[in-house]
Amino acid sequence: MTNPQQSSPVAHRSFGARLESTFSTLGHLCVGIDPHPYLLSGWGLADSAAGVRDFGLRVVDATAGRAGIVKPQVAFFERYGSAGFAALEDVLAAARNAGLIVIADAKRGDIGTSVEAYGQAWLTPGSPLESDAMTISAFQGVGSISAPARLAEQGGKGLFVLAATSNPESFGLQTAIIGRGEFAGRTVSASIVAEVNSWNREPLGSVGVVIGATVKLDDYGVAENDLATTPILAPGFGHQGVGFDALHSVYGSASGNVIVSSSRAILEAGPTGISGVIDAQTQQLAEVFAA
Amino acid sequence: MTNPQQSSPVAHRSFGARLESTFSTLGHLCVGIDPHPYLLSGWGLADSAAGVRDFGLRVVDATAGRAGIVKPQVAFFERYGSAGFAALEDVLAAARNAGLIVIADAKRGDIGTSVEAYGQAWLTPGSPLESDAMTISAFQGVGSISAPARLAEQGGKGLFVLAATSNPESFGLQTAIIGRGEFAGRTVSASIVAEVNSWNREPLGSVGVVIGATVKLDDYGVAENDLATTPILAPGFGHQGVGFDALHSVYGSASGNVIVSSSRAILEAGPTGISGVIDAQTQQLAEVFAA
Repeated sequence: MTNPQQSSPVAHRSFGARLESTFSTLGHLCVGIDPHPYLLSGWGLADSAAGVRDFGLRVVDATAGRAGIVKPQVAFFERYGSAGFAALEDVLAAARNAGLIVIADAKRGDIGTSVEAYGQAWLTPGSPLESDAMTISAFQGVGSISAPARLAEQGGKGLFVLAATSNPESFGLQTAIIGRGEFAGRTVSASIVAEVNSWNREPLGSVGVVIGATVKLDDYGVAENDLATTPILAPGFGHQGVGFDALHSVYGSASGNVIVSSSRAILEAGPTGISGVIDAQTQQLAEVFAA
Repeated sequence: MTNPQQSSPVAHRSFGARLESTFSTLGHLCVGIDPHPYLLSGWGLADSAAGVRDFGLRVVDATAGRAGIVKPQVAFFERYGSAGFAALEDVLAAARNAGLIVIADAKRGDIGTSVEAYGQAWLTPGSPLESDAMTISAFQGVGSISAPARLAEQGGKGLFVLAATSNPESFGLQTAIIGRGEFAGRTVSASIVAEVNSWNREPLGSVGVVIGATVKLDDYGVAENDLATTPILAPGFGHQGVGFDALHSVYGSASGNVIVSSSRAILEAGPTGISGVIDAQTQQLAEVFAA
């Protein structure tokens, strides 16, 4: 396919450049905004659109100034229909107004004008759900997401394509071997990572991948070289059992590109405890990156 | 994985049984509700949440009594954020009140409690976005969608898992060969189809697959046997160049399970022309199935 990042005038500072600045000033921590019903209950909030709105706004308040990135899990807002989306709009706006980079964890995917419409929904400056980046699935081929990749580039936004996710059920599909074409002989994960990396430019591009911290890159046939200029969104630390100190052994030479996603370990501290855990995790990560 | 359809009490008539009734009374046509901006303009409607609401309600009115199934493309509502979802809620409610089977073409996907939340959003009786079925992606493994499959079964709802889609960019990924486990040696598409079919019971189960009409089952390694009890949602007729008369040659012995999705050929007829095209397509399909 054609490189979606060529021949589009870049009117904004790129997402990759903004991410690099944030890494150097506030570090690599990304705080998940995951209003599970059990967390709402633990926080004394209602299982309602108003409850997830309050939850999201409190996480934004606690994160601002302590870490640079938040990641709302859209599914937990979508449960309440349009009222949940109205709550999410407030949380997204508050986070962006606080200067946070907002990654909407939406895992959308489709083809043609449909996937383009998802890109418009989340990545258009001024749209109600405007975020700085969104997660996306390329089950219909990496070529299927070229329209949102183009929109991202034009609006100074980012995209994170699922590549090697942290759940064990994904292994069979994501390590299946491509039979034909440019990526023949490589795994599904490796083909996604290589194609995405080819779109990015040094030092850090705007189309990233999702690679879980529980993954061994070798098992998925993913080469560190193919991650050289690609941001990596990394779930799987903490709750799924991987410590921050494993970062270099999992991502190797690409470690500097990693956004470390942390949700439950922070959120389970409750509304008065989250600031302290965010501070502690930011500090731990700074030590890991200094090592 | 365990069969999500075992050990759950079925409180409702199953989605598969409702689909069978509809096939025999109103046929196999599914009318797409795809408010593309170019169609809104052609219909004289605003490119706004109010525009997509009007568009959707008119398609519902024209379909009721003429065909049995509608499929709103969620992306075209999501473009307008929470206001678009409020419009979609009105369209979904109108369609269900008219007795239509509503398949929300949402293509959601995730793992654990997140994918379960998507299932709750779309498949819970009484929820704001309640539909009769939704489309879903299993990029994170078929095992990752067992929670929404369970919810579907419990609520008399359905699920359609992307398997072999109609766009050419999907071929490499969907025909990649699984290396290990129960489905070693089979394609990604075939493994999804076989696993889903194993969940379903005769004559027609409630977890379906999406297989485009442009697909040759052999090229994707999909066996007709593995579709015996599985509903098939089939995009790709019409606009993508395949005529209804190709149905038997594409789906073979599984043709009786096919939901024939048709969008642009109907919608381009405009608000006063759509009823006539729906009638004509219903008649054409009845002849194909009688042959």
